Amino acid sequence: MDIAERSLAIVRDELRRRGWVFPLPWAQVVERVIHSTADFEFATLLKASPEAVEAGMAALRQGCAIVTDVHMVRVGIDARRVAALGGQVHCFITAPDVVAAARANGLTRAAQGIRHAAAQGLLDGGIVVIGNAPTALREALRQVEKGVRPALIIGVPVGFVDAAESKEALMAQATVPWISTQGRKGGSPVAVAIVNALVRMVVGEEREERLEIGD
Amino acid sequence: MDIAERSLAIVRDELRRRGWVFPLPWAQVVERVIHSTADFEFATLLKASPEAVEAGMAALRQGCAIVTDVHMVRVGIDARRVAALGGQVHCFITAPDVVAAARANGLTRAAQGIRHAAAQGLLDGGIVVIGNAPTALREALRQVEKGVRPALIIGVPVGFVDAAESKEALMAQATVPWISTQGRKGGSPVAVAIVNALVRMVVGEEREERLEIGD
Repeated sequence: MDIAERSLAIVRDELRRRGWVFPLPWAQVVERVIHSTADFEFATLLKASPEAVEAGMAALRQGCAIVTDVHMVRVGIDARRVAALGGQVHCFITAPDVVAAARANGLTRAAQGIRHAAAQGLLDGGIVVIGNAPTALREALRQVEKGVRPALIIGVPVGFVDAAESKEALMAQATVPWISTQGRKGGSPVAVAIVNALVRMVVGEEREERLEIGD
Repeated sequence: MDIAERSLAIVRDELRRRGWVFPLPWAQVVERVIHSTADFEFATLLKASPEAVEAGMAALRQGCAIVTDVHMVRVGIDARRVAALGGQVHCFITAPDVVAAARANGLTRAAQGIRHAAAQGLLDGGIVVIGNAPTALREALRQVEKGVRPALIIGVPVGFVDAAESKEALMAQATVPWISTQGRKGGSPVAVAIVNALVRMVVGEEREERLEIGD
């Protein structure tokens, strides 16, 4: 806790010295992403639709489902605080029926996992978090085209094959609030930092202390 | 698979155009880290002791234990291929006795998890993988001072409080082979990419195909 607070203070200070001042609550998202990556380029790469942070916080307050593409994202999310809000974190990439269906459908497992979550009704009103697989982000966008309505899509896949392009497609659509990164950079820690920033803002410091004591 | 291969080819090509040519097997490590982060700065930040890659591969071949600081690193490692070699991936950060001992000892849970692994005899001859917590890397170095001998320490914590300094301490010691990054950058995907690069080189393509078929 102490280390995290000191780190965030350093990030905040360096951002200010570099001339970057973000309004709250967006500042918290940017600071946590840089804290997790030590990469100040994210101050310029991170983008969001205007309503995204509030939409995500409102959904979390209602105990929405959180669906991730990969387990590295799932295990990084503060599941205890999400549970305290009535929510749950899901990842279906290794579910046996998902693995079998992916093979049958010629999809990646990550994409099939998102399709599976949509079929379970978990995407409507939920938060979709893609930290790794552009194919999973493409599937989430296909679900939106079909009428599925997540409260927020956090789409920050990293890489060299369709990562930048799939994120451009996310940022170009105007149906669902989104948080993303321009270009190739992104990844599991970026996705986790964004979700946990929203969770911390919803749970709030007082509630956090009570959680610590009850831990 | 196909996407990963295309991505790695792009990384290799861009490294060459930037004037970076690394010898094998080190090239595989660098390429996988950049593939996982889309951050070419790692071409200059990644460092290793001369014997590190061979030492890690030799340990993996013998089915050594792999001990990680956090679950995000644990779940990213190719556990199936590690198991095929007779090894196992461990992370003790949330083990109930570790959580209790951390509180009693005034250590972080991540550091206590490494101490626990040492007490279980898992560090001797094993591979220690620190992707997140400088405190865990410091504990691994304390264990080395006490005579514990991991085959390899992969120490790539990220952040602003003792990440760079703890990695400098790792790189300054000459007792245990190491792979690390200079400065603040690092993180779970970097740690995972390094381990999986070593695993892939040990398992080899032919074996990989057999694993895919049996999957």
